[in-house]
Amino acid sequence: MSEHEGKPITCQAAVAWEPKAPLTIEQVIVDPPKAGEVRVRIDFTSICHTDAYTLSGQDPEGVFPCILGHEGAGVVESIGEGVTSVSVGDHVIPLYTPECRECKFCKSGKTNLCQKIRDTQGRGVMPDGTTRFHSAATGKPIYHYMGTSTFSQYTVLPEISIAVINKSAPLDKICLLGCGIPTGFGAVTKTAKVEEGATIAVFGCGAIGLSVIQGAKYAKASKIIAIDLNSEKFKLAAQFGATDFVNPLDYPGTPIQQVIVDKFDGGVDYSFECSGGNTSVMRSALECCHKGWGESIIISVAGAGQEISTRPFMLVTGRVWKGSAFGGVKGRTDLPGFVEMYLDGQLKVDEFITHRMKLDEINTGFKLQHDGLCIRPSVSMF
Amino acid sequence: MSEHEGKPITCQAAVAWEPKAPLTIEQVIVDPPKAGEVRVRIDFTSICHTDAYTLSGQDPEGVFPCILGHEGAGVVESIGEGVTSVSVGDHVIPLYTPECRECKFCKSGKTNLCQKIRDTQGRGVMPDGTTRFHSAATGKPIYHYMGTSTFSQYTVLPEISIAVINKSAPLDKICLLGCGIPTGFGAVTKTAKVEEGATIAVFGCGAIGLSVIQGAKYAKASKIIAIDLNSEKFKLAAQFGATDFVNPLDYPGTPIQQVIVDKFDGGVDYSFECSGGNTSVMRSALECCHKGWGESIIISVAGAGQEISTRPFMLVTGRVWKGSAFGGVKGRTDLPGFVEMYLDGQLKVDEFITHRMKLDEINTGFKLQHDGLCIRPSVSMF
Repeated sequence: MSEHEGKPITCQAAVAWEPKAPLTIEQVIVDPPKAGEVRVRIDFTSICHTDAYTLSGQDPEGVFPCILGHEGAGVVESIGEGVTSVSVGDHVIPLYTPECRECKFCKSGKTNLCQKIRDTQGRGVMPDGTTRFHSAATGKPIYHYMGTSTFSQYTVLPEISIAVINKSAPLDKICLLGCGIPTGFGAVTKTAKVEEGATIAVFGCGAIGLSVIQGAKYAKASKIIAIDLNSEKFKLAAQFGATDFVNPLDYPGTPIQQVIVDKFDGGVDYSFECSGGNTSVMRSALECCHKGWGESIIISVAGAGQEISTRPFMLVTGRVWKGSAFGGVKGRTDLPGFVEMYLDGQLKVDEFITHRMKLDEINTGFKLQHDGLCIRPSVSMF
Repeated sequence: MSEHEGKPITCQAAVAWEPKAPLTIEQVIVDPPKAGEVRVRIDFTSICHTDAYTLSGQDPEGVFPCILGHEGAGVVESIGEGVTSVSVGDHVIPLYTPECRECKFCKSGKTNLCQKIRDTQGRGVMPDGTTRFHSAATGKPIYHYMGTSTFSQYTVLPEISIAVINKSAPLDKICLLGCGIPTGFGAVTKTAKVEEGATIAVFGCGAIGLSVIQGAKYAKASKIIAIDLNSEKFKLAAQFGATDFVNPLDYPGTPIQQVIVDKFDGGVDYSFECSGGNTSVMRSALECCHKGWGESIIISVAGAGQEISTRPFMLVTGRVWKGSAFGGVKGRTDLPGFVEMYLDGQLKVDEFITHRMKLDEINTGFKLQHDGLCIRPSVSMF
């Protein structure tokens, strides 16, 4: 039992007071969990491009001031009334895609996009419409972000937004399972359901792209083509399982989709767009697919108002255009299994961590994202 | 055995000498079939919008002069050397999508788009690079169209472009199985694989749209929403199985996708675009799909250079964009089964035939396509 049970906790957090400004490390008050909620001590977090996207002000759903962060791991500090699936002391990963197991979406068997708390989560509040965060200095309310807010030493989550995992897993590593790794891996194994022997192309070799490569190797793809403008990244891509490497800069004047179609027997069986939201890369990814059956999966999030285009002929002749969010992974059900795979040595996680830092260096972590060789930082919250 | 076996036949055909001009009914010489080819007497043909599209000059693959027509039925007159799967006297339907059973596409198990003779068919010639049609008056060569050219009393086809069907089927009716009916029906049952209880939306109630409706009823869809700008068409749509009717003109100022999402519980499980190539309808069809799992199938052919667009968010949140050509139907394998379904009373065909005419009235048939209540004419070739 926590000494703070039922009471507010004052702790450190990185607060985003407004778009485009650096985060400020300061004291916040974290209210105790209400009914159906859980308060979690976040031990480690990472930083994802989506955090930077919202901080840039381009995210139409961005609500400020807020506490960003959605790739974290920690330990349950206390639980609210009626919580049954999570206990104090459980090791957990916060889920920005909840799993209520009750809504039309959860019950469909066709999607992981639980909609139970979609509206309130999008507005930066808990399901009852209020926030659990306040500034310790002024008392001003601070909003939640993606239902997770892992840039705070303590955060409050709905019970349905928590995956309970094996306590023997190191939290400084498996915090990465909160977003990037399952997103790429699941896009291959759950959304596309890549079969043994298939050929795949991956556009972008960041954390998501490397996770796609890892998923494709796991699925026994016969050819895994890594595509990036920075050839330095191909070394790491090879380590994850890529078999072929294409840098579009080596083919000036030829659309990259044409290069892939020409070099690889009419195109690939599956392509994955992990470019960080570039809509022209999304088109290339579709159009490098093989006529008759090639499927392309959009993974990254484009800026507001941006659109994708192609000739309908590309689809009528058999290509399929899809997307994937959180890799089609149902967090409470599937994420514990990802942790087990990691513990069994079947899933690379450590290799993604290129930098380590403390919470008060988190703004440096954002800057490092622009460095092509930073994959993920592991940020220690204490 | 035909009296003309091994010799040219002089017969009537409707020749398209140039784009945008009426067809001329005149004598043509039809050479005997070469090795691997079959000469077929066409008894009945229909007219499809794709014939009109090519005649309009918009089809970048249109080669003139040619003999149009790709929805026909007839009887084998003679066979070339080495032909084994087709015999003289067989009742047949010409296939614009052949089925060689040998190419990478046929063997993939994932597509019906046999590519064995794609190049020559696209250039209006037989697989050996030459044409079997000549003007009787001048000897000038006349090109093939879609590998079928059913607007001639006799035509020559590769053996792999012929479906042999039950002799008891009336050719004046089942000529329609050469394109429109399998295209719509197959898009539902083979491309989308609509399951019992699913909800579907059909954009456009022409021959293809009605076939989609028929396919959806066969698949036991729970809700079949017919969408058309001409409410007159809803009577026929209801006969084929539509359960709901939406005319976008009744909702001025609201995008039709929004109307469908609002009226039908978040959107449909499957949508089918049968608009005759309108790219903005293709977008509406995608965007009226249910978040998380809705799939949209593009069926019609857009004009050269036209593109489809959407926000990638539509795909990332679970919608799927696909296309279908000839309904995913493998002609030699599947089309005989469609004929059997018709003979068993399980497939409506007669109801599509709204007009009847002779070959020399075929230009009238083209004009009737602009009449919303003409679904298909049955054209008697003799």
